[in-house]
Amino acid sequence: MKQPVDLKPFFEPRGVAIVGASRTPGFGYGIPITLIQKGWADRLYLVNAVGGTLHDMPVFKSIFEVPDPVDLAVVILPAPAVPDVLAHIGKRGIKHVIIESAGFAEVGDGGRLLQEQATGIAAARGLRIIGPNCLGVINNDNGFTTIETLEESHTPGSTAIIAQSGAFGNVLLDSLPQRGLLISKAITLGNRMGIDECDALEYLRTDPPTRAIMMYLEGAADGTGLRKSLERVTREKPVIILKSGRTAAGGSATASHTGSMSGDDKLYEALFAQTGAIRAASIDELIDLARVFSTQPMPQGNSLGIVTTSGSVGALTTDVAVTSGLAVPPLSQSTVKRLKAEAPPWMNVRNPLDVGPSGLFAKALSAVLKEPRIDMVLAIPLLPFSVAKLYQRLGFELDKWFGRIASIHADAPEKPLIACAFGHREFLDIMARICGTSVPLLNSPEHAAGALAALWRYSTWKKTRA
Amino acid sequence: MKQPVDLKPFFEPRGVAIVGASRTPGFGYGIPITLIQKGWADRLYLVNAVGGTLHDMPVFKSIFEVPDPVDLAVVILPAPAVPDVLAHIGKRGIKHVIIESAGFAEVGDGGRLLQEQATGIAAARGLRIIGPNCLGVINNDNGFTTIETLEESHTPGSTAIIAQSGAFGNVLLDSLPQRGLLISKAITLGNRMGIDECDALEYLRTDPPTRAIMMYLEGAADGTGLRKSLERVTREKPVIILKSGRTAAGGSATASHTGSMSGDDKLYEALFAQTGAIRAASIDELIDLARVFSTQPMPQGNSLGIVTTSGSVGALTTDVAVTSGLAVPPLSQSTVKRLKAEAPPWMNVRNPLDVGPSGLFAKALSAVLKEPRIDMVLAIPLLPFSVAKLYQRLGFELDKWFGRIASIHADAPEKPLIACAFGHREFLDIMARICGTSVPLLNSPEHAAGALAALWRYSTWKKTRA
Repeated sequence: MKQPVDLKPFFEPRGVAIVGASRTPGFGYGIPITLIQKGWADRLYLVNAVGGTLHDMPVFKSIFEVPDPVDLAVVILPAPAVPDVLAHIGKRGIKHVIIESAGFAEVGDGGRLLQEQATGIAAARGLRIIGPNCLGVINNDNGFTTIETLEESHTPGSTAIIAQSGAFGNVLLDSLPQRGLLISKAITLGNRMGIDECDALEYLRTDPPTRAIMMYLEGAADGTGLRKSLERVTREKPVIILKSGRTAAGGSATASHTGSMSGDDKLYEALFAQTGAIRAASIDELIDLARVFSTQPMPQGNSLGIVTTSGSVGALTTDVAVTSGLAVPPLSQSTVKRLKAEAPPWMNVRNPLDVGPSGLFAKALSAVLKEPRIDMVLAIPLLPFSVAKLYQRLGFELDKWFGRIASIHADAPEKPLIACAFGHREFLDIMARICGTSVPLLNSPEHAAGALAALWRYSTWKKTRA
Repeated sequence: MKQPVDLKPFFEPRGVAIVGASRTPGFGYGIPITLIQKGWADRLYLVNAVGGTLHDMPVFKSIFEVPDPVDLAVVILPAPAVPDVLAHIGKRGIKHVIIESAGFAEVGDGGRLLQEQATGIAAARGLRIIGPNCLGVINNDNGFTTIETLEESHTPGSTAIIAQSGAFGNVLLDSLPQRGLLISKAITLGNRMGIDECDALEYLRTDPPTRAIMMYLEGAADGTGLRKSLERVTREKPVIILKSGRTAAGGSATASHTGSMSGDDKLYEALFAQTGAIRAASIDELIDLARVFSTQPMPQGNSLGIVTTSGSVGALTTDVAVTSGLAVPPLSQSTVKRLKAEAPPWMNVRNPLDVGPSGLFAKALSAVLKEPRIDMVLAIPLLPFSVAKLYQRLGFELDKWFGRIASIHADAPEKPLIACAFGHREFLDIMARICGTSVPLLNSPEHAAGALAALWRYSTWKKTRA
């Protein structure tokens, strides 16, 4: 197993050269704009063979003209030009390179040859390389980024992303803030000529703002290395993985995408189970798990309380929870008695607790959350939007109807609390505000119950490794 | 097995009495408003003991005062008042009743007694009853509805909904138009004192606008009856079912919700498989399956073509497709040759087909859809929203970049075509317009591949029964 590479210069460069800065729209045009906007103009050097100016900055005709300090180069040039450029970068004394260019191992024999050539040069010069065929990195701590994304994706959060694919990572990034997920750092690996997911995991393991790591993997660069990295990292932080290539056909598709061999899925299944990594079954579940793991404490037991306004969804959720290894135990007599004193006759005071249109949601949620025998709570505040609009007209805002869920959690912050709602978009927007940032609002009751079960499994696993 | 009840008077009443019309916000206040808005004022009669006027309409003090023709009564009164009112309704000669009131078998012994009493009166008077503990029906053909929902949910469509739970059905209804699903009819069953899912299935079987039926079931009212109904209906129309009560705890939750016994889940699994019903694993999947089954033709084989801009998502989707029983075969030589002539060197012309940022999405989609060896196509047009915004600024609208997907389908309407996109909301809104109503745009690639596999399995099943 190789020594992990320190990724600090990729995320906190002292100076960065954009080799292939360009007047034509594309990465070479856009990345400098983003870096200037993020306050990096004083540490940014643009390079292309033509020279002149771009975005009101001088363009250096050669990497050799770029002044110190500069410890990172971002290469955005056609693949055939990359080997020579790498040699120049190495000669200039820059040791860290992000190669965004595509056209290497993922396109077949010609590209593979080119990649081997580049790998040889990198080895000879002692270069550390992210890519090729990637988008590079984001560091929301200091605003450094080689990924053009929406401004809202640069709000600092507590989830780090490791993505093998650039495009997929970028589509995700653009939409995560709308799902309530904010990121600390992101790294896209591409063809993994040098830096791989093990390096990324080790770096993020000690990254202070990163509380949970989500990873999209097509195949391991080094199975033994991945096992060792996961074993080290999951003791400290949860790692949630979406792995494609489960089937031969899917595997063959990844080979032509990032040149990865995806391997036997059963081996990965075992690897993830043995190392305490959390496997997501879908993109949506990956996001939902990351939201829960990056915000919620570890549960002290597997007893789930469910509070809802819909008996149907309460039943569906109970099914998923129990199937996933959680218990949905009865409420204590004192809680039942207290709630019954206020409940209308049609309301069944039990767990799952369907309060229907009683208006008791907030009280019930608070009571269940404080129950000593309950270790975690799922709140499912559902209301037809037509009814919500009527309530609003009558002066009943939803934060009165359902309570300020974020504040309710503040009374028992040591227990995981997740909310789940689906329905009309406007209803969901209001509910997201009521839940705040400390209570993730998921849209799928099945994912919500599954995420709490995953949280419980991970907490158990972590205890055995402590 | 009992004879199915004709539900026509519930969906097309000649006249309807609202027993429990009310000046207090709630169903008794809102349902009349909705019916007046939908043009039913001339066939609507409001009844409560106080009389007077409501919504500028006279209120009859007794059901006996309501003039003919009236063949449906909607009861919105506290549970204890219901048995007597049922007797009056029967005496008045009205045979069809929707009881919206809760507080019957679902709340325990007292309610169960009340429900038995009501059942006895209904039997003596020959009444047909939907409910209690339900919201009644929607008929988007004639605008008749006893469910208050958003105006947009009344746009006529081709999916019918059978829901055991009122509140859940209503939350769904409010949000389905935003998911691109329009409904023909809806019926919520509640405690099923009289009308059950078999009656509903039989009625919808011959309902012309209904192309697919989606059903939320907590437990069968009559297992043998459900088997016979499903066998008859699925020969003609797909029935997609979400069934809760998989576990004992979930089952106990449904008992206290609509008084249902959910039964052994393995029996249901077998029942659905043997009758060709399609089982959804989650609420989201229920909706996605309904969208696909209500709009797409039956595939002639199991060969899937995948066209995408993301190699990762292409690989993930191939996994799900192959695991679900579909083939993702190579493209024909002539198609490969034709696409290669235009493709940039980095593009792998294969299936799944990742066109990356080549701009060839529309051409590729059209070519794959027309491939004789391809039976159905999944289009996955992904683009980071930041890039989409840049394209728009440069004058490249997304319908140029990805093609007008609805029009592309029009060239090969005999093959199922589904689109899948996720990411930023604004991007999804634009893509929904590009896909139109004939190509469902799903947000989960896993659901999209799974839905096509379900379509294939159903088409095979249907052939064996023809």
